Amino acid sequence: MWAGDDTAVVNPESPAVLLTTDLLVEGVDFDTAYSNGGDVGWKVLAASASDIAAMCGRPRHAVVALGVPAVTTVRWVDEFLDGLMEASAAWDVAVVGGDISAAEQIVVTVSMLGAPLRPSPVLRSGARPGDTICVTGTLGAAAAGLIALRSGAPRSDQTVTRLIHRQLRPQARVSEAAILAQFEISAMIDISDGLAVDLGHLLDESGVGCHIDEAAIPVDPDIPAGNGADPFELALLGGEDFELLITMNGEQLEAASDGLGAVGTPLTAIGTVTADERRIGRRALDEWRSKGWEHLRSR
Amino acid sequence: MWAGDDTAVVNPESPAVLLTTDLLVEGVDFDTAYSNGGDVGWKVLAASASDIAAMCGRPRHAVVALGVPAVTTVRWVDEFLDGLMEASAAWDVAVVGGDISAAEQIVVTVSMLGAPLRPSPVLRSGARPGDTICVTGTLGAAAAGLIALRSGAPRSDQTVTRLIHRQLRPQARVSEAAILAQFEISAMIDISDGLAVDLGHLLDESGVGCHIDEAAIPVDPDIPAGNGADPFELALLGGEDFELLITMNGEQLEAASDGLGAVGTPLTAIGTVTADERRIGRRALDEWRSKGWEHLRSR
Repeated sequence: MWAGDDTAVVNPESPAVLLTTDLLVEGVDFDTAYSNGGDVGWKVLAASASDIAAMCGRPRHAVVALGVPAVTTVRWVDEFLDGLMEASAAWDVAVVGGDISAAEQIVVTVSMLGAPLRPSPVLRSGARPGDTICVTGTLGAAAAGLIALRSGAPRSDQTVTRLIHRQLRPQARVSEAAILAQFEISAMIDISDGLAVDLGHLLDESGVGCHIDEAAIPVDPDIPAGNGADPFELALLGGEDFELLITMNGEQLEAASDGLGAVGTPLTAIGTVTADERRIGRRALDEWRSKGWEHLRSR
Repeated sequence: MWAGDDTAVVNPESPAVLLTTDLLVEGVDFDTAYSNGGDVGWKVLAASASDIAAMCGRPRHAVVALGVPAVTTVRWVDEFLDGLMEASAAWDVAVVGGDISAAEQIVVTVSMLGAPLRPSPVLRSGARPGDTICVTGTLGAAAAGLIALRSGAPRSDQTVTRLIHRQLRPQARVSEAAILAQFEISAMIDISDGLAVDLGHLLDESGVGCHIDEAAIPVDPDIPAGNGADPFELALLGGEDFELLITMNGEQLEAASDGLGAVGTPLTAIGTVTADERRIGRRALDEWRSKGWEHLRSR
């Protein structure tokens, strides 16, 4: 994959292309104590694929830059490439080039090209008052998986294994984005920093507010209660679930939900876009937002 | 520039696009003792633009990922962005997005899209026996600039200042590539690792050899003699000059040289592609190649 010219030639097959870049840093975005090379390769590709999906795009081509310390083993790098290739196969992305350098800690950048699935891409800025706010899948699982990894929870437990898998091998909602492209969605973002924070980004860009029904938030059912972290808090603040947060014409919700049913992914309405006020249940969004994932993760 | 959606929408205006990524790491590819933020921002963009130029392409869009330690000043980051923007203005590249993370040392990745200037891009693999080997500009200046920086040579000397400028603010040969696109060039590579090493890459990819006329190599005239490093050795082994190494139909050399004269860049024939044997003067290319820039730089 690093072979030949430094620059790859690709055929985007669309007049517009989507372009994104993601940087993962050892000790900040992953920890080699519990992520092997394959996990890191998978996750960095998934993060970029998720960014493309959130624009209603199909991931197409990627280039990878890898910085590795002298102490990193060849085995780690091999596993990294394997994980990268597994993820690229999962979402049909061609890894077309890369660069490698020495570094003090492992750093990985994936830059990805995508093809828009609609004539105009879905931005964060398109939400309008009255739109229904909905979310794919369940939330908080990746954060609960991180807690399990840090606490050394036994992986014999199937539930724990599933949470850990959601932390280490997240799914980008690529098929889901392709289905959603057929409906009147007005704005979309992937949940990488937590629902409260990414919802805040979307509302900021759109210049609107929200009323979120607390009880409707799809907290992942596998998150254990009484484990030091409240499942609801993890669902609201936990990052790296890579679910899609969507605003859309509410009349199409049922049809969109049926559409996503074909790939086994739930779509849950959690509230409504308002003109101004931002509430999650009875509390202000900003109360939650200030407690975001970065804060939670660094604990 | 980091504003809004994580993913940018760009219009390549060509059916094929060129895609490249370059990683620069503090302490490996630059040293903050003599490179300020602006120098690093400039150089990382120049390195990618040079990769695109070497494919006979025009740089168009870039995304940037920056990892910075907590001790890095806001001023450094501001200077970095200024340098990046200066270079992007110089070569008409739109910086359309980015990502930022904490890191133990400064790491920067630029990924760039380019538009091919010919129906099929110029690869490293197209050299054929009988082609003329030529090079733009002069060689060894960036390496001599690095030596001057490390030795703390006084910058009051105009010659030293120019050498240092070639190390810190290299020029990507973007206009030159656009002119060369009109001629029968068979292969091209930019000289980032030194003439001996990059010529080796080109010959490997093309499955051919070379006879290089030592005396024809355009050693930069400003490199001081008797300064611990032989000017000829720097020209052959010094990296980061970002000049273009070209193989082409020799009958077109004069016209191509006249063409490049319009932008003030010399084009110098330095030898001929052969079927097999690889010589620089009376010595084998591999003798030089094994002494490459990485080796020289780490001294």
